[in-house]
Amino acid sequence: MSEPTARSLGEFGLISAVTARLPQSDAVLLGPGDDAAVVAFPDGRVVATTDILVEGVHFRRNWSTAYDVGRKAAAANLADVAAMGGTATALLVGLAAPADLPVAWALGLADGLRDEAALVGAVVVGGDTVSAAQLVVSVAALGSLPGRFVTRSGAVPGDVVVAAGRLGWSSAGLRLLQSGVLEGPLVDAHRRPRPPYALGVVLAAAGATAMCDVSDGLVQDLGHLARASGVRIEIESACVADEAVSLADVLTGGEDHALVATLSGPVPQGCRVIGRVVQGEGVVVDGEAVTGGWDHFS
Amino acid sequence: MSEPTARSLGEFGLISAVTARLPQSDAVLLGPGDDAAVVAFPDGRVVATTDILVEGVHFRRNWSTAYDVGRKAAAANLADVAAMGGTATALLVGLAAPADLPVAWALGLADGLRDEAALVGAVVVGGDTVSAAQLVVSVAALGSLPGRFVTRSGAVPGDVVVAAGRLGWSSAGLRLLQSGVLEGPLVDAHRRPRPPYALGVVLAAAGATAMCDVSDGLVQDLGHLARASGVRIEIESACVADEAVSLADVLTGGEDHALVATLSGPVPQGCRVIGRVVQGEGVVVDGEAVTGGWDHFS
Repeated sequence: MSEPTARSLGEFGLISAVTARLPQSDAVLLGPGDDAAVVAFPDGRVVATTDILVEGVHFRRNWSTAYDVGRKAAAANLADVAAMGGTATALLVGLAAPADLPVAWALGLADGLRDEAALVGAVVVGGDTVSAAQLVVSVAALGSLPGRFVTRSGAVPGDVVVAAGRLGWSSAGLRLLQSGVLEGPLVDAHRRPRPPYALGVVLAAAGATAMCDVSDGLVQDLGHLARASGVRIEIESACVADEAVSLADVLTGGEDHALVATLSGPVPQGCRVIGRVVQGEGVVVDGEAVTGGWDHFS
Repeated sequence: MSEPTARSLGEFGLISAVTARLPQSDAVLLGPGDDAAVVAFPDGRVVATTDILVEGVHFRRNWSTAYDVGRKAAAANLADVAAMGGTATALLVGLAAPADLPVAWALGLADGLRDEAALVGAVVVGGDTVSAAQLVVSVAALGSLPGRFVTRSGAVPGDVVVAAGRLGWSSAGLRLLQSGVLEGPLVDAHRRPRPPYALGVVLAAAGATAMCDVSDGLVQDLGHLARASGVRIEIESACVADEAVSLADVLTGGEDHALVATLSGPVPQGCRVIGRVVQGEGVVVDGEAVTGGWDHFS
């Protein structure tokens, strides 16, 4: 008997099989299966973000399992919520897939989304499934804020720049995959980023003046933060260096979803100082301007 | 000089050009440009839903303008929020697009999303843009609830079934487009559905026991409602007949995003009675079981 596919199960059979694997939480007033979900946000503020993963661009089915893709798709969104000083509560998932997609792949994706979300207490509350030639996973995350939220625009000269989480591991892992190496910690880091979710709330409470996650590369994402804040950011390469990867990967590799923040007060446990905020513009490393990072259309 | 494309403008140039066209609202505490948006929901409950549109499946660039696609993508989500008894506040938009996508197409899409959202007072608060071989527009909507929310599962025998909005126009319009007819009210209805957004809140306040929007076809969507409620729904063809389209289109055509609801009280203005809820299961039309509607993978 051939393997069940989206076509053989049908749209509604597939949706039922997926939602059966998804636990709900106390915050969910109405879960999957209706026109929309209803989620409680007692403090009346919602952090909202979305990220799309495309096969061949963000993942390859021969390099990552469906479970890995689910973990990674959730991580990209959960990290964005953390980077505001929030905690994700609910995910919405859109899946555009060929009709011959194995049902097992969709279930693996759901399991990965579920397990990554569970790291912060979030659950999948709804979604949409459509047919498409190319496999696309779209996730939106909703989060709550225990306190203040932190934008990219509040850094001031005199602040230190701190980082939490890995830098450069995902891009180093991608290069290994491209060269035929299919196992190891760097490859694992590419398949399943490990953002330091809990430190987003900690950094907000510690008075972070600006914060973002590193999606496109340290220099590029700090460049956005520097521009939004109207400041210059000076990085010390000795402070970001990591024996596991090259300095180029640390500075320009994306998709690890580390958190970077600026602040003037004591540095929270789990964060390392990597530089400082001064007057001016741009990002410099050891005194030299650096550019580079991911642009989807270049 | 050649037309600007996503590639020539770059990811961040494209995002800047799009967000410059998007007004914000009082509910938006932080709009586009950061890791995530922050939106106020004073009553602490959020209606959340997502829908994906794929080129070649949900739209064709030679049949619909980018503006039309934006209107349609927003409408599918806003109607889901309305079908819960809510009003959408904020949209998140994901765009997966080839690098040669004309910038004008992305701007037209943004304008369409903006203008459809404005019909209910919602705004686009964030998004993501990635490269892909196939053009995919993913929208998530967040909405607030002025009162109770209405699921699909509360219909009880004795209720009447009411509908608001067009039925069958979009599918009739699609068939005209397929036959080469590019203008006319049915074709317009396929390009830009007109869901009766305001009636969702009205029906909830009027005591609707169950409600959904018609995305996949009247019989199919009422079938979901009947199954969730554990009832049978009897439709009178004379009550749904529409001189503009065939009865088959009325019963099985999707994408008009009409609202259908069950209730026992007075029928609100703008809604028409199309049938009744009885004991049993399934959907019957003039006493005969009917099936049919859209399945993405069949």
